[in-house]
Amino acid sequence: MTGSARSHRDAQYGLLTSIANEVGVSLTTVSKVVHRRRDVSEATRVRIEALLTEHGYVRAWESGASRPRQILAVFRDLAGPYTLEVVRGIVGAAAEAGVHTTVGTTGRRSIAQWLQESVTLDATGVVIVISALAEQDQRRILEQRLPVVLVDPLNAPLPEIPSIGVTNWHGATTAVQHLLDLGHRRIGMLAGRSHSLAGAARLHGYRAALAEAGIPYDPGLVRSTDFDYGEGLRAARSLLDESGRPTALFAASDVQAFGALEAARQLGIAVPSRLSVMSFDDTLVAAMASPPLSAVRQPFQELGQEATRVLLHLADGKPPVTSRKELATELVVRMSTAPPGAEARERH
Amino acid sequence: MTGSARSHRDAQYGLLTSIANEVGVSLTTVSKVVHRRRDVSEATRVRIEALLTEHGYVRAWESGASRPRQILAVFRDLAGPYTLEVVRGIVGAAAEAGVHTTVGTTGRRSIAQWLQESVTLDATGVVIVISALAEQDQRRILEQRLPVVLVDPLNAPLPEIPSIGVTNWHGATTAVQHLLDLGHRRIGMLAGRSHSLAGAARLHGYRAALAEAGIPYDPGLVRSTDFDYGEGLRAARSLLDESGRPTALFAASDVQAFGALEAARQLGIAVPSRLSVMSFDDTLVAAMASPPLSAVRQPFQELGQEATRVLLHLADGKPPVTSRKELATELVVRMSTAPPGAEARERH
Repeated sequence: MTGSARSHRDAQYGLLTSIANEVGVSLTTVSKVVHRRRDVSEATRVRIEALLTEHGYVRAWESGASRPRQILAVFRDLAGPYTLEVVRGIVGAAAEAGVHTTVGTTGRRSIAQWLQESVTLDATGVVIVISALAEQDQRRILEQRLPVVLVDPLNAPLPEIPSIGVTNWHGATTAVQHLLDLGHRRIGMLAGRSHSLAGAARLHGYRAALAEAGIPYDPGLVRSTDFDYGEGLRAARSLLDESGRPTALFAASDVQAFGALEAARQLGIAVPSRLSVMSFDDTLVAAMASPPLSAVRQPFQELGQEATRVLLHLADGKPPVTSRKELATELVVRMSTAPPGAEARERH
Repeated sequence: MTGSARSHRDAQYGLLTSIANEVGVSLTTVSKVVHRRRDVSEATRVRIEALLTEHGYVRAWESGASRPRQILAVFRDLAGPYTLEVVRGIVGAAAEAGVHTTVGTTGRRSIAQWLQESVTLDATGVVIVISALAEQDQRRILEQRLPVVLVDPLNAPLPEIPSIGVTNWHGATTAVQHLLDLGHRRIGMLAGRSHSLAGAARLHGYRAALAEAGIPYDPGLVRSTDFDYGEGLRAARSLLDESGRPTALFAASDVQAFGALEAARQLGIAVPSRLSVMSFDDTLVAAMASPPLSAVRQPFQELGQEATRVLLHLADGKPPVTSRKELATELVVRMSTAPPGAEARERH
């Protein structure tokens, strides 16, 4: 927003406050009249309208002045640390662009209903996070030219709908390379589900890094679960309970890595001296784990910024520059990884 | 929203789509005309207005039909698991009432600016979470009769501004009673800051439970920090490093409890066999700690519901029923607490 638009708005706001005082009603009531709502008595409405006219009040959205823009950010749910990071990224980036963010879930309203709601609300567009979009919804987005950007879609969307994620494949190879560099050869994986694009890419990255190091792929060292703590815990227990257990585990998400840490604790296996645990995400809680998790970091702030930027670009009626963008991940080494058979490093 | 309002809106939406197809423009463009925005060519605008009139389109907010209502939820920041819980509570409860939630922080916009923005956006009201409200902002809320509800305010607001929190004092006594019941007598506390209402109440609860059990208060067993992981870790290390260290720690928040678990790990002190750790919050990550944290649970969903309910009540111009509401907490026992000197329970 420009400075003059801001100061114009400030002045208008002051006027509404004066009118409220003069008429002896609340600012909310004046605002209702400004927004042409009907839940105000006729006498009050007429009185306020007269004062608005007298003082030359111009309704912002009828004057061409920019009403604050808003985008919708729609999530499957608001559970888990990953979600908070993405909310933070989108809200922060949108605020920087002077845009408000309305946050919703698909719990009470389907994707189709959110698309419709974006029109009702006059929203600038919709960011849809980690969802599998039905073909029908995708067609609707294209036919009605709705500005929509997908963050981490579960399935591959039509190429005309822009999507943004991170370099899941490359990030996973970095994670496994870190474990290889420490000297690990028996590296297990708590993978995501194969129907998830991100999950599949991380598993392929794991396999590629092993192949590059000349280590044959052993499906017995891999368990596929949702990005879920309880499932990660159970899968890690089953991997670590077996003879010939891995010396390192690569978890495809922070919540699975938390499960692995708890599985190791329950089995009396010290991390990192007897088991290294490597994570993917680096949400705020990764650094709070005990021990703090080494992880491949997703650039959540940048994900939000890029999603917002692409959305505003689309909303201006411009075609997306590219249909799929992948932002770079980064290796963050903390205390959950060490060479195999390392001395206990608990005291330091 | 009533079923007929919904079906009316569906029908209107269908009409806009048909008009977009007929004129050969996007639905976004039709929507701009509907919302009287000016960034549409005059020729297109006239053509669309004519079709709107021909088909009897009624602008929802000029017809008395309810435009979707929205509330603003304003946070200091969107960091930490507590924040996600409160976002989830408010968004869920608002959605149930058919109300949208716009999420923002005070990072780029002050409380005063958010109050003003709520009028510009025609928002139903504002929920302000964990903030210290300046006296000036409080006066403005009252003078302009802005619908505002505070969740967990840091300082005591004017009694006319409704605030909602949990039974921090009572919850803390429950937490300490749980440790006393297990047989602990030397119980330390990672307390919050005394300037925080919630922090002060939890410390008083700790003291009250000890006094009730006839245990004199020992300020040497208490450290005050922000609700912060790093500060909790450092404070717990200093408490546990001393001779005559406590057999149990009560942390005033989940993030401080995570710090305590890591301090114990670094010092080679097994939890819960040699140290019990009790937390307050029970955000989603408490159950993911290693070991999973016993905690006093804040009813986040209910906090959001109550805040939304009180806000809608205020927005209808009704006075608040009470100025301060405290919702009940609940004891959740997991694996981080045990009798002092208990055998290691790591395998089970």
